[in-house]
Amino acid sequence: MKFIKWMIVMCVVFSAKSNAQNFSNLKTYNEPLVLESVGSFYVGGNSEQQTRVQIGGFFPDGNITVNQTYVSYMVPYMRQSNLSVVMIHGMNLSGKTYETTPSGTMGWNEYFVRKGFPVYIIDQVGVGRSGFNQKTYNDVKGRNQSPENQPSIIRISDENTSVNFRFTTFDGKQVENGKFPLVYFSEFSKQSIPFMSGAVPRPNPTHKNLAELAKELKNTVLISHSQSGSFPLDAALIDMSGIKAMVLLEPGGTGNQYTKEQLEKIKNIPLLVVYGDHLKNDTGVSGHSWNNYYEGWRNFVGKFNELGGNAKMIHLKDIGIKGNSHMLMMDVNNQEIANLIIDWVNQIK
Amino acid sequence: MKFIKWMIVMCVVFSAKSNAQNFSNLKTYNEPLVLESVGSFYVGGNSEQQTRVQIGGFFPDGNITVNQTYVSYMVPYMRQSNLSVVMIHGMNLSGKTYETTPSGTMGWNEYFVRKGFPVYIIDQVGVGRSGFNQKTYNDVKGRNQSPENQPSIIRISDENTSVNFRFTTFDGKQVENGKFPLVYFSEFSKQSIPFMSGAVPRPNPTHKNLAELAKELKNTVLISHSQSGSFPLDAALIDMSGIKAMVLLEPGGTGNQYTKEQLEKIKNIPLLVVYGDHLKNDTGVSGHSWNNYYEGWRNFVGKFNELGGNAKMIHLKDIGIKGNSHMLMMDVNNQEIANLIIDWVNQIK
Repeated sequence: MKFIKWMIVMCVVFSAKSNAQNFSNLKTYNEPLVLESVGSFYVGGNSEQQTRVQIGGFFPDGNITVNQTYVSYMVPYMRQSNLSVVMIHGMNLSGKTYETTPSGTMGWNEYFVRKGFPVYIIDQVGVGRSGFNQKTYNDVKGRNQSPENQPSIIRISDENTSVNFRFTTFDGKQVENGKFPLVYFSEFSKQSIPFMSGAVPRPNPTHKNLAELAKELKNTVLISHSQSGSFPLDAALIDMSGIKAMVLLEPGGTGNQYTKEQLEKIKNIPLLVVYGDHLKNDTGVSGHSWNNYYEGWRNFVGKFNELGGNAKMIHLKDIGIKGNSHMLMMDVNNQEIANLIIDWVNQIK
Repeated sequence: MKFIKWMIVMCVVFSAKSNAQNFSNLKTYNEPLVLESVGSFYVGGNSEQQTRVQIGGFFPDGNITVNQTYVSYMVPYMRQSNLSVVMIHGMNLSGKTYETTPSGTMGWNEYFVRKGFPVYIIDQVGVGRSGFNQKTYNDVKGRNQSPENQPSIIRISDENTSVNFRFTTFDGKQVENGKFPLVYFSEFSKQSIPFMSGAVPRPNPTHKNLAELAKELKNTVLISHSQSGSFPLDAALIDMSGIKAMVLLEPGGTGNQYTKEQLEKIKNIPLLVVYGDHLKNDTGVSGHSWNNYYEGWRNFVGKFNELGGNAKMIHLKDIGIKGNSHMLMMDVNNQEIANLIIDWVNQIK
């Protein structure tokens, strides 16, 4: 009943057209941005032989590359740190997460660069410019596979996002002290794109690609978010040589998939976990609960430290920072959150 | 027979692993890059109500945004022009086309910024960070649609690309005077990602989005490539108010879809068409022929000028620039090609 009421309210809230662009809202800052370099590249990927049907029917069979990870980067002209920062987005999003915010203000990519860190942003395998392995979809079209075998292409509706990401309560009102700029919700909706997670092999090649990237960059801080929450740990378990610290922003899951032996292996990498406010404001859809995730990772942090690790949990509302949504990097106080992370990073040796 | 021999040769050529990353090849330049601003946003997009099945089955039905176009930008601190440049990629590629080249050298985005132009790069609707409308795929999985109705997801094999894009001849050897850095072919292969063109509505929303973008930017040069060749014209036919010039790099098709009335409407926008070398080096797959396209657009340029337009065709080999591939912006002489375009742009009033 509560759910049905919520659906009706949300239909009204989001019936507004979402085609207004935020071009005129894009902010420019007084200080120029001075870069040593800017660019992009791919890390990882492997060649795979596929049939004509599997590559879409227009061209003959042959090799294509799959499982590569797109990386864009900016390196400041005046580095203030020997650490590089890698930013990893969550479900149904892309590297865009860390670029210009929905309200047109500076994204964390630019903010961290202005603070002197080289910044690398990825698209996960299965979304955006990293692409995905499309063969099963085309095999289904060609009747070489049953439709049931086709991996779902996942999207999240605006109605679900608004509550699930704690922008609004079930009745469509902004959460108390809400920090997400709700008036620009339609701009956030545009960032939400199809996620082909079901077409991504296990283990997820993004883990290996992140480990490789970190190894190339050397002293790297991996920052993950939501569905990618545990990726820094997964990367470290493959090769921790390039990973200097791990920052998990509102990680999904609970971290209880790791064995004691695994935690022993990676416990010397400092770990920071950050959660926003209103964790019980949730749709409960698909068994989802931010509060459960928070409790799980709080427990994880405890175990990590018991083993001699250096892990810290920041629940923002406990230190007086209220109203933050799931999208910490887009909230109106996103620079305040970034500064907390930078302060923590700077104090690890 | 020729085709079978080519397939065998190509299988040998491309059997090498393609997982080497070009990280160590990334070039840094002596002069810092000084930007007024950097960032990204979406243009266009509309809300669409979809069922639970259509959005992948994990979340309840609701509204999602489709048909939005991702745009990333860099604005130089010292503008040298009142024109902005918009770069549009071709089939199976993304905005990455204009970023760091496969050999790790400066992409055209940075080069044009260093020449004083604000640069805007898009991902077409149907690929990359712009996403695509996934509902039919999920409806097929849910048996609400027949598999035959599922749009193909298109990829191009390395073997086909190498000849089709005129990097190599049929026998796997680099073309004469070849300008594409063949040793980095595997890096180019990673840029080739699934293209959901069959899921893109007609007319293509990218046309309208480009017209809107140009209108916001005001004096805009639209640069298109290959499959997007005619997009600047399509955008101009919707709203030409922001379009100051059109540059078509190796456009596909022949341009003969436009009526005289349509050409009359847009003839006052200066037009430049550029083709590389070895246009007869082609696989012939799917009726494809660069030479036919070249002849078609040469004819188009003639018609445009007969109506009083200002159109120019540059066939690079005719002005002594030999060996250029289909990927002009990645060839080793890509700055020479960029300079030709910049010189042409600067002489239009």
